Amino acid sequence: MFDKRVYITRRQTLAAKMREAGAEGLMIFIGNAEAPAQYKDNCYKFRQDSTWLYYFGIDQPMYAATIDLESGAETIFADDVEIGDIIWMGPQPSVQSIAEGVGVGSSAPYGKFDETVRTTLSLGRKVHYINPSRYFNRLRLMELLGRADVEAGVSEVMTKAIISMRLVKEQCEIEEIDAAGELGQRMHTVARNAVRPGVLEQDIVGLMEGVTLSGGWGVSFPTILTQHGETLHNHLHDKIIEPGRLLVIDAGAEGNSHYASDFTRTLPTGGKFTPKQRDIYEIVARCNEFAFSITRPGITYREVHIETMRRMLEGLKALDLVRGSIDDMVAEGTAGLFCPHGLGHNMGLDVHDMEDLGENLVGYDPDQVRSTQLGLGSLRMARRLVSGNVITDEPGIYFIPALIDKWKAEGTGKGFVNFDKLKGYYDFGGIRLEDDVLVTEDGARRTGPNRLPIEPDDVEQAMG
Amino acid sequence: MFDKRVYITRRQTLAAKMREAGAEGLMIFIGNAEAPAQYKDNCYKFRQDSTWLYYFGIDQPMYAATIDLESGAETIFADDVEIGDIIWMGPQPSVQSIAEGVGVGSSAPYGKFDETVRTTLSLGRKVHYINPSRYFNRLRLMELLGRADVEAGVSEVMTKAIISMRLVKEQCEIEEIDAAGELGQRMHTVARNAVRPGVLEQDIVGLMEGVTLSGGWGVSFPTILTQHGETLHNHLHDKIIEPGRLLVIDAGAEGNSHYASDFTRTLPTGGKFTPKQRDIYEIVARCNEFAFSITRPGITYREVHIETMRRMLEGLKALDLVRGSIDDMVAEGTAGLFCPHGLGHNMGLDVHDMEDLGENLVGYDPDQVRSTQLGLGSLRMARRLVSGNVITDEPGIYFIPALIDKWKAEGTGKGFVNFDKLKGYYDFGGIRLEDDVLVTEDGARRTGPNRLPIEPDDVEQAMG
Repeated sequence: MFDKRVYITRRQTLAAKMREAGAEGLMIFIGNAEAPAQYKDNCYKFRQDSTWLYYFGIDQPMYAATIDLESGAETIFADDVEIGDIIWMGPQPSVQSIAEGVGVGSSAPYGKFDETVRTTLSLGRKVHYINPSRYFNRLRLMELLGRADVEAGVSEVMTKAIISMRLVKEQCEIEEIDAAGELGQRMHTVARNAVRPGVLEQDIVGLMEGVTLSGGWGVSFPTILTQHGETLHNHLHDKIIEPGRLLVIDAGAEGNSHYASDFTRTLPTGGKFTPKQRDIYEIVARCNEFAFSITRPGITYREVHIETMRRMLEGLKALDLVRGSIDDMVAEGTAGLFCPHGLGHNMGLDVHDMEDLGENLVGYDPDQVRSTQLGLGSLRMARRLVSGNVITDEPGIYFIPALIDKWKAEGTGKGFVNFDKLKGYYDFGGIRLEDDVLVTEDGARRTGPNRLPIEPDDVEQAMG
Repeated sequence: MFDKRVYITRRQTLAAKMREAGAEGLMIFIGNAEAPAQYKDNCYKFRQDSTWLYYFGIDQPMYAATIDLESGAETIFADDVEIGDIIWMGPQPSVQSIAEGVGVGSSAPYGKFDETVRTTLSLGRKVHYINPSRYFNRLRLMELLGRADVEAGVSEVMTKAIISMRLVKEQCEIEEIDAAGELGQRMHTVARNAVRPGVLEQDIVGLMEGVTLSGGWGVSFPTILTQHGETLHNHLHDKIIEPGRLLVIDAGAEGNSHYASDFTRTLPTGGKFTPKQRDIYEIVARCNEFAFSITRPGITYREVHIETMRRMLEGLKALDLVRGSIDDMVAEGTAGLFCPHGLGHNMGLDVHDMEDLGENLVGYDPDQVRSTQLGLGSLRMARRLVSGNVITDEPGIYFIPALIDKWKAEGTGKGFVNFDKLKGYYDFGGIRLEDDVLVTEDGARRTGPNRLPIEPDDVEQAMG
């Protein structure tokens, strides 16, 4: 948890932004409950709501809070541990002292939260809330509001004000992101040292997750570790590592303060790239470097994506996998066949930062319209960059048989894509290379102190 | 997953039990959804509902099923992966083929499940469902039934029929419990090898959880690893290991098939017990062994608990921590001051098996009334044992300052408890020793192939 002044300032800023936008009424914040894995009392490791953490910091279940936009009053609602529970839980600090620890002077039992919200509504005052990201929070809103379609009542003014703040990381947050980066880099190093033919993928995943649990909260998202990198949503780890494959490892750590890291490296399973693998790998590595080199305040990440895809097409053209005018291919979105996802996303307390608040509200400026092209249309972060943004830089090239067949059948990419030559790549797999990047005053820097080897020679040496 | 005949037989048995009990109508089963950790698409590792796993085996989210008690018809409801998703997820088997894999011939899209349930209700037929253990399942039931108080409609006949089956483990289940035991025993061995003064508790927890993730689904419950064993619900791991303390490690593994293990050992942090620690440790170790020695078909686990507490009181009396008639202390529940929890619980697909179905329905025979005494009242498994029960054997002795002070102030245990001598134990902590036990035809055996060292000399040697 940060110093209480951090939270006080953030809440004051939020309330000021709301008032500037003409909002009145009561802002409400619902912290997370424990999430049962099996039965009610056997839960997953507790993960607090990220927006709650940002404004209130308290990393415990069953908290709620209100900020009154008229009076400025802030109240935290939670139940003190009962005397009977002290036998089981040991002595616990009071809710009041916990609230004071984040600069909130007023606290009340959890049940008073419902009462406060209902009274506010009955007085005809506006209640501002954000989109619930969990079933528990949705149930709570349904109960509080007496309506099932809670999404329809989400406060856009509150959502936008929160996004505008969380998009720009403070120094104390950047330190935590660097720390999560260090932990994520250790995860990947442990993995790289364990990769060899004959090992079960799950064995390596366990080693990696153990690192994150020793040093932090755990993984910032379910680890991807696959010899089928062309399957983008692949969370199975049931295969034995085979020689001659490419192993995509996309994994990150969440620190105890809940800031994330998110890195991808692609390793030759036997320790050496084949010439064919190295050709594609080099293109992806150059794209990763190129995107980083043009990332700076003032450019949009949409532009960085598009220009990086241009470099990718140039590389693929040199291998005769695509043909013709690069400008035309950029306009047509031909790169989407090879990289159907976006170049990157915001990262912070969530690995896809604030995704529950709405992808377009988070990642697009008001003057930007999201593309419908494959690839560019999946771009989660398109905004004009400002100092303090933290984003991922993760170009990839994949040979997805179902997608290639679809384009060929539909005539998409016709005249540009060399479908004949692609036949030799159906069992290639995929390559992705990802770093986390902080936009600085005059450019950018990668977060985490020990950048993972990325040049193919360095990767081979590290595995040797 | 087991052979399809296992699931076919279980469902037939369940339907037969329902009909024998005079039940009519439709049984419904709601599998789990993904559980978001942060935003909707960043989820905890998927954990299927245990009752679903028992009858349908399919370890994937967003499945549901019905069994019609009149026609005998079984249907599985889930959505096939759409062509667009194959690009991201790779080719996937059809729902129909997955259903056939567990012996269900009929499948339909997920939306048809809602339609089927609503039609059944509108015809005035009974719909049988069990208590939902997750917020998602509760929401689903609210939607299906059009009522908020879904607990009030839970089918007791279905609940009891399921409990009667899951309480008695089949051979294929016992093999999985032994495998989870092996994994849990490896967890504890890794921990024991890492314990020494100066190490952060969280470092050891990460090592242990890494083992479970490499070899299985993960932990079967959040690991307890604490130098304050007297705090029974303690999931913090933020302390440095100090010399001269007792470290309680209560942890288990869940295999990839989702069967659990659950072991507790208490280690001297510096590798050697002090004489004072050893005196208490010996009592707990003797209780663990005694309980195991009398566990057999025909005895109730309530009796095993009570007789074990008698041995505990004898040991405490020899140390002059309690005084007077053992029979009187047993009757008064004096052992509850030292062991405020029960001797053990059922274990299977859940580590507290079926706890979501109702503790008393699961753990108590119809002729048994749950005690209100501290300790015995917390006993989760009291039933008359039968071959195939899997239970834990976990006596403990704790010195809980808040509880000792409470008893003294209230006069509880007066004349029995030597409160003066207990003053020397306020910083002792606690000791618990737990094995998992299968009730056999003629007695019992401990599950997991490599019983963890428990005799104090063996523990010291293993740490040496």
